[in-house]
Amino acid sequence: MALHRIGRSTILLPGRPRIAAGAAIAGKKEGEGPLRSDFDAIIEDDLFGEESWEKAESRFQYAAADACLKKAGLTPEQIDAALGGDLLNQIMAASMAVRELHIPFLGLYGACSTMAESLCIAAMLVDGGYLRHALCTASSHFCSAERQYRFPLEYGCQRPPTAQWTVTGAGASLVTGDDRLPALCRCTHVTIGRIVDMAVKDANNMGAAMAPAAADTLMRHMADTGRTAADYDLIISGDLGRVGHDVLLALMQERGQPLDPARYTDCGLEIFTPAQDVHCGGSGCGCSAVVFNGHILRRFREGSLRRVLFMATGALLSPTTSQQGESIPGIAHAIALEADT
Amino acid sequence: MALHRIGRSTILLPGRPRIAAGAAIAGKKEGEGPLRSDFDAIIEDDLFGEESWEKAESRFQYAAADACLKKAGLTPEQIDAALGGDLLNQIMAASMAVRELHIPFLGLYGACSTMAESLCIAAMLVDGGYLRHALCTASSHFCSAERQYRFPLEYGCQRPPTAQWTVTGAGASLVTGDDRLPALCRCTHVTIGRIVDMAVKDANNMGAAMAPAAADTLMRHMADTGRTAADYDLIISGDLGRVGHDVLLALMQERGQPLDPARYTDCGLEIFTPAQDVHCGGSGCGCSAVVFNGHILRRFREGSLRRVLFMATGALLSPTTSQQGESIPGIAHAIALEADT
Repeated sequence: MALHRIGRSTILLPGRPRIAAGAAIAGKKEGEGPLRSDFDAIIEDDLFGEESWEKAESRFQYAAADACLKKAGLTPEQIDAALGGDLLNQIMAASMAVRELHIPFLGLYGACSTMAESLCIAAMLVDGGYLRHALCTASSHFCSAERQYRFPLEYGCQRPPTAQWTVTGAGASLVTGDDRLPALCRCTHVTIGRIVDMAVKDANNMGAAMAPAAADTLMRHMADTGRTAADYDLIISGDLGRVGHDVLLALMQERGQPLDPARYTDCGLEIFTPAQDVHCGGSGCGCSAVVFNGHILRRFREGSLRRVLFMATGALLSPTTSQQGESIPGIAHAIALEADT
Repeated sequence: MALHRIGRSTILLPGRPRIAAGAAIAGKKEGEGPLRSDFDAIIEDDLFGEESWEKAESRFQYAAADACLKKAGLTPEQIDAALGGDLLNQIMAASMAVRELHIPFLGLYGACSTMAESLCIAAMLVDGGYLRHALCTASSHFCSAERQYRFPLEYGCQRPPTAQWTVTGAGASLVTGDDRLPALCRCTHVTIGRIVDMAVKDANNMGAAMAPAAADTLMRHMADTGRTAADYDLIISGDLGRVGHDVLLALMQERGQPLDPARYTDCGLEIFTPAQDVHCGGSGCGCSAVVFNGHILRRFREGSLRRVLFMATGALLSPTTSQQGESIPGIAHAIALEADT
């Protein structure tokens, strides 16, 4: 079979599948940040009318999927598959959200890289004609993530300066091969992440744990495509936060592919202002999901971005691995996007 | 883009990607069962030389991947992506196994359907030329699963008659588009599962929770392809166990597409004998993973199977959803396989 490949490990999408719609549903704190006008809805109630934070998170993911479908003018019956995940054990937020849609479902786990993982897989499957319409979703919730990964909120644990703030929110994108639908942007290349583990063990410093994986993916993407940072209007990483952002800048400098700080940013830095007291910035699957589907797609729509590399990062830790003394494996998946014309 | 579709929701794989190799690494109890001669290795030590059951499970998954690559005559560097998962929180067994291989990694969560989910996605991506060589992996471990989902083993909880026994083991398959490699079998169709939830809440009766999802996938597969059960030498579900197996037979009878009990079986019934005191049979990602990669691929190699529908089932519950009173969403992904010539 002919291989759609450029370089050693970057995948070409000859059909340039389109992202026809995206939706971002954000929590209260996220709605007080600089991107507030990019979100489809801001939910003031942390519980979103549900009885638990986990169910609330699922409601966020469902609301994002529902809003995305409405914006694309499609019904759930028209969607060939949903690809999604979240940070919770057994990705219950995604499963419970998709249960209500009754769509064929491919569950993913990529920690905070999930939005990029789902876009990468969906773009390939749509490009190849295996799916016509694919719905990509991801979510996180500050309250469910804290008690999942760290401490119950009620414990009132003090957060170290390297900590990030898990975003409450969900995003959804509609990837399609149907040329009757509009193209906010086109998917052109996929670079699948490798696991890189530099022996960081601090679950409150995930930026440092993930940055080497982001550097690995970026270096491979650039070597494969012959591109440099200057070929992108924007390279945006998932949720490295302040520490990881700076580590990635240093790593890329060291490896001879420096990033231009004016055209490289991180979703975790975009979503909050320092005044919001989030220490190193936002994190969680929902962070890159709402920044991508709210902010980045809006800028494509307005024409202020022409070519973007979206690279969400994930820290593949679990509370059990942390307790067993394991270090934190990082991963970063990248998808290159271009304006339609 | 041309759509590779037959019927409403079944995906055709025109290039018929091949499964070139499979490996199954099983635990002690599984090695005492009827399939013992089908496994590549039987590990007597539950801990596999590691310090925890979780790390042991990861070691099983690594060993299966390693054995599969050796059988295919490939090195990790030649693999374009690994697609895998397991039952543990944040799929740590898969992540830690792939970390050692340094292969691009797509993490999946499909509960016990993971082996089929990974084969379905890999078969599409290989068929489309997005990956040349894809490595699919899945694992489970009795001890890590019990403490993850139910009770710590030390508690000595009595198991109800509907309970199944989580298989300790891991499987790996190599899906490839390289026609220089042998074809144990070819992948011809994929039917992605939908979430079906019939409000079963008993985490000790997962067969009943999953059987309606299996019926949904089977009915769609048959309607789409125009096939009936008689078109398959074998239809094998993932891990419905005795209760789920019988529920599926009844549901298919009721819906006018009866299964022939002589040519329908369940991985959970094949792996143990009733004398092994496993109540309703085996379960876990590892169950369908070792039965598929050990037993089914061996029978393809020997020519005693010509056409098989492999349909692993998953119960998308988490301990948190159970504690919050949620019912158990089920899912089943199916992949149709044919002998090479």
